[in-house]
Amino acid sequence: MGPAKENVSSQTQNRPNEWKIEQGLAGADLPLLDMTGPETKIIPPQVFGKPTKNVEAIKAVGDRNQLFKMERKGWKGFVEWENHPEKKAAAHKILTLQTFPPNPEFQMGEIPPTNPVLPGTHWKMWHHAIGGELDAVPDDSWKTVLEEKHPDMLHLLQFPYNGEPPKRLVTDQVITPNPLHFVRNHGGIPIINRDDFSFLIDGLVANPQSFTLDDLMDESRFPRVKKTITMQCSGTRRIEQILKYPGQGDEVPQAPWAEGAIGTAEYEGVSLKKVIKACGGLVDGAKHLEFYGAETYFKDDHCMNYIASVPWSKVKANEVLLVWNMNGEPLPRIHGFPLRTMVLGYIGARSVKWLYRIKAIREPSRAPVQSQEYLYFPQQVGKHNFRLTDGIQIQEMPVSSAIMSPWTKQVVVHAGKIRCKGWAYSGGGRWPERVELSADGGFNWYTVPLEHMSKKRTWTWRTWEMDLPCDAEGWIEIVVRCWDNALNTQPPDVRTAWNWGLHVTSSCHRISVYSVNTTKPETKARMDEFERRGVPFAPLTVPLAFPAQTWEDYEKFWEKNGPRDAEDD
Amino acid sequence: MGPAKENVSSQTQNRPNEWKIEQGLAGADLPLLDMTGPETKIIPPQVFGKPTKNVEAIKAVGDRNQLFKMERKGWKGFVEWENHPEKKAAAHKILTLQTFPPNPEFQMGEIPPTNPVLPGTHWKMWHHAIGGELDAVPDDSWKTVLEEKHPDMLHLLQFPYNGEPPKRLVTDQVITPNPLHFVRNHGGIPIINRDDFSFLIDGLVANPQSFTLDDLMDESRFPRVKKTITMQCSGTRRIEQILKYPGQGDEVPQAPWAEGAIGTAEYEGVSLKKVIKACGGLVDGAKHLEFYGAETYFKDDHCMNYIASVPWSKVKANEVLLVWNMNGEPLPRIHGFPLRTMVLGYIGARSVKWLYRIKAIREPSRAPVQSQEYLYFPQQVGKHNFRLTDGIQIQEMPVSSAIMSPWTKQVVVHAGKIRCKGWAYSGGGRWPERVELSADGGFNWYTVPLEHMSKKRTWTWRTWEMDLPCDAEGWIEIVVRCWDNALNTQPPDVRTAWNWGLHVTSSCHRISVYSVNTTKPETKARMDEFERRGVPFAPLTVPLAFPAQTWEDYEKFWEKNGPRDAEDD
Repeated sequence: MGPAKENVSSQTQNRPNEWKIEQGLAGADLPLLDMTGPETKIIPPQVFGKPTKNVEAIKAVGDRNQLFKMERKGWKGFVEWENHPEKKAAAHKILTLQTFPPNPEFQMGEIPPTNPVLPGTHWKMWHHAIGGELDAVPDDSWKTVLEEKHPDMLHLLQFPYNGEPPKRLVTDQVITPNPLHFVRNHGGIPIINRDDFSFLIDGLVANPQSFTLDDLMDESRFPRVKKTITMQCSGTRRIEQILKYPGQGDEVPQAPWAEGAIGTAEYEGVSLKKVIKACGGLVDGAKHLEFYGAETYFKDDHCMNYIASVPWSKVKANEVLLVWNMNGEPLPRIHGFPLRTMVLGYIGARSVKWLYRIKAIREPSRAPVQSQEYLYFPQQVGKHNFRLTDGIQIQEMPVSSAIMSPWTKQVVVHAGKIRCKGWAYSGGGRWPERVELSADGGFNWYTVPLEHMSKKRTWTWRTWEMDLPCDAEGWIEIVVRCWDNALNTQPPDVRTAWNWGLHVTSSCHRISVYSVNTTKPETKARMDEFERRGVPFAPLTVPLAFPAQTWEDYEKFWEKNGPRDAEDD
Repeated sequence: MGPAKENVSSQTQNRPNEWKIEQGLAGADLPLLDMTGPETKIIPPQVFGKPTKNVEAIKAVGDRNQLFKMERKGWKGFVEWENHPEKKAAAHKILTLQTFPPNPEFQMGEIPPTNPVLPGTHWKMWHHAIGGELDAVPDDSWKTVLEEKHPDMLHLLQFPYNGEPPKRLVTDQVITPNPLHFVRNHGGIPIINRDDFSFLIDGLVANPQSFTLDDLMDESRFPRVKKTITMQCSGTRRIEQILKYPGQGDEVPQAPWAEGAIGTAEYEGVSLKKVIKACGGLVDGAKHLEFYGAETYFKDDHCMNYIASVPWSKVKANEVLLVWNMNGEPLPRIHGFPLRTMVLGYIGARSVKWLYRIKAIREPSRAPVQSQEYLYFPQQVGKHNFRLTDGIQIQEMPVSSAIMSPWTKQVVVHAGKIRCKGWAYSGGGRWPERVELSADGGFNWYTVPLEHMSKKRTWTWRTWEMDLPCDAEGWIEIVVRCWDNALNTQPPDVRTAWNWGLHVTSSCHRISVYSVNTTKPETKARMDEFERRGVPFAPLTVPLAFPAQTWEDYEKFWEKNGPRDAEDD
């Protein structure tokens, strides 16, 4: 694995005095509000009941091992649904002949303190209910997670797998190592042999045809493209919306993403435009390309493949790639091996993994992912009245940013400046021009010096670091905002942009930390006393274990400032 | 039990149409953010470890049954510490010869979903460590809770007992029935026989003397006083501060009070002024009265009685009573039987229960409750730097108010107006003049009509009800504020007045509810469809179980409003 390392910290490592991080107690003993700690221990989520089945009626539908058997050699866990209405009908019958226990509720109460956070109860049960080729998928997928991902990943949803890196590692490097790159899967992970792989381009193209990986890799046919791309899930920072107000619980539970559902990697592949041209181009008014993923997607008791679409204009601009390498290695299975699309500057949901088909069509896809999900609703709309057409189909992400250090509920011991770091990103090929920080909840803003921001690129985030001036003590609110090259900036708070689907949390990221400013003599004296006595300052809430003041001092105060109760003199 | 019933609801029961509450789904199936539900089931809090003792060394201190034996006939659970330095010294030795397991941490993580919420680990262990007369106190106190208080009480702290009525009952009546009145005890409940009771007045008075209850009840000596009084704990609504930022964890854990740490009752007794006069009045520059409660209080491994003081000016104004009846009945044991002080318009902490002594002194009490606790700190002050003298000693409470219905996270189905109810109060004898509600987070304010407010009195709260106009749907924020007769009003938000001691949460009370306005045709149609299909609307987060829109409608929308992606025409 050889991503170009652009670690911001290393850029500044020659200035230890200026940039020495006042670690103090931050992150040491303090419990954190966020879900990232403890990081390594896998605590299983709550186990739920079993489905209630009409066993005889299900048997009457047919032998599930036959109905849903392996279709393509070397494609484990794959069922092609879209060309097989009879399979869809059988699956629908099987699913409606049983009652599944409810998904865990996590928005109204507390986010479970487990890792994985949510089990994906329904999706596991649905796979087992269909059986055949799908039966082993939940277990195979979890095995793949454990093989391919970093042991400290925060597993927001066990199946279909949704995970993000722990806070401390999100912006540790400008290029995210593959094991730490976030994953938002919508189904199980198909295990596909490279040599058995091909995908079809059909629909409204002049000459429908199939391509193998070797076809795509033939540089005499398709020029090779390498691009560094930041991908973001439209659910990034959803936890902030959930903690403010509950919203729609999707069929796939709305994973309570923190700031890590964003990652940057160098991808290698070809421009889809060239491959479409190799099929003779679009015909009959085609304006959109529909991507088919090999995973099975469930919606309203129906089985289908994962399908999303992008407009031809995006493909024409060479902003849609078909890629097989990620950071110099073959795509990990969990990221779509052997081939996926990469749609530059769009939300991750459009970059379909385990691609097996591209279909040229006239209108944006009517498949559920495009027409019923990833919708950005206005504020007056919710369960009581929403229509699908009330939502904007989310393609490009707006400008956003996040503070990755310090974290909410940490104590930061500093000498007038607080070291902060994080990321900033804008979708659609726009880029962060200016990042600003506030230590007072968003009243005064300081600009991050350009020399402490990573390189400006069309399709990537910028990571940044800054020593933020802070005089105030006690709980302070640090806020970040970004201005992109089109001078877009972020809504001030979560309420402003809260939406029923809990997507696109692009409001200014706010964290609360407890500031201890050792340039204040009283504070310096108290902190020295903690040290002298060998008493830890943390946890913050434990009462002071020594007198706050001598009685002599106390009496002197009242001599000078008494009486307690004003008198009529 | 015969409080004058002034139930606001009953005032308006002749106008069923105007005042019909749109109950809809509010409070039915919805989990609540607050701690009041489920109400009746007692779920024990987490059990903690045992102290590590130096058994031999403790034995060497003496026989605890002898050291701390019953002192006064008919006074179970009472130890007089203040006149017995040798007992204090023995107790201190015993306490420091063992290590107690940590108290539960509940501010950094989640508030436990148990009832009792917190166990009071240390206080139970300390009582058992002292043994003798204190050994049975934790159990006796809990038995008293179960005998005297309403089964639906929210037990915030099991021992010393801290509890408040469930939300739905806080303002159900203008006069709080005794079993529902909040309790904030600082120690165990002494079980005192009425006929064995007397208390001493000493210190800087001309003629120190003792009084029995019969002495006080002798109307030829002391004129009888009956007063309706609202008592408020300075911890009321502390949960809002905790949820915003953690703060000091007291020796008695900071009970996470909601809006119910306030109650109103009619008390019967005598003015302390007359009793002081019966002692010949104050001498030698006395300016404060120190009240001694029979419960044992612990601070920094020292045992003491519960002691607080008030200024003579307050007594002189006949604003300090010695009372034996509460709502026409003898004081419940948990509220101080047989005699307590009632300090009008001051925080509850000054109204000492199980009164056994009053001492006239020159300065405000230096006992911990007065000098080290109930302090209102400024914002830059906390564990890192606070001195006791940074805090204002809390006596009068400022103007405040709370919404008792609806509750945060409830769904409210209404026809353009939301029925709200709650309380408003101001300390120091000031009274609520105007209560205002906002349905938009505090931008527009509506005045509660005077005819929907309970009677104006010098020393009590006012309960109120209002149908608040609300057009908006989805999550809305309802806010209440009160203006008292001195035109004081409340800080806008928790941050403004957050303080390290987590006292006096007087900021505008804000609740988030999900508004469903059936005057909107789309909403009406959707709600009718829920009813027609027999599908419950709650829980809110469960996805819509039927199509949000027909496909015909969907396609029509795009015919009219397409394309999805703007084109360059």
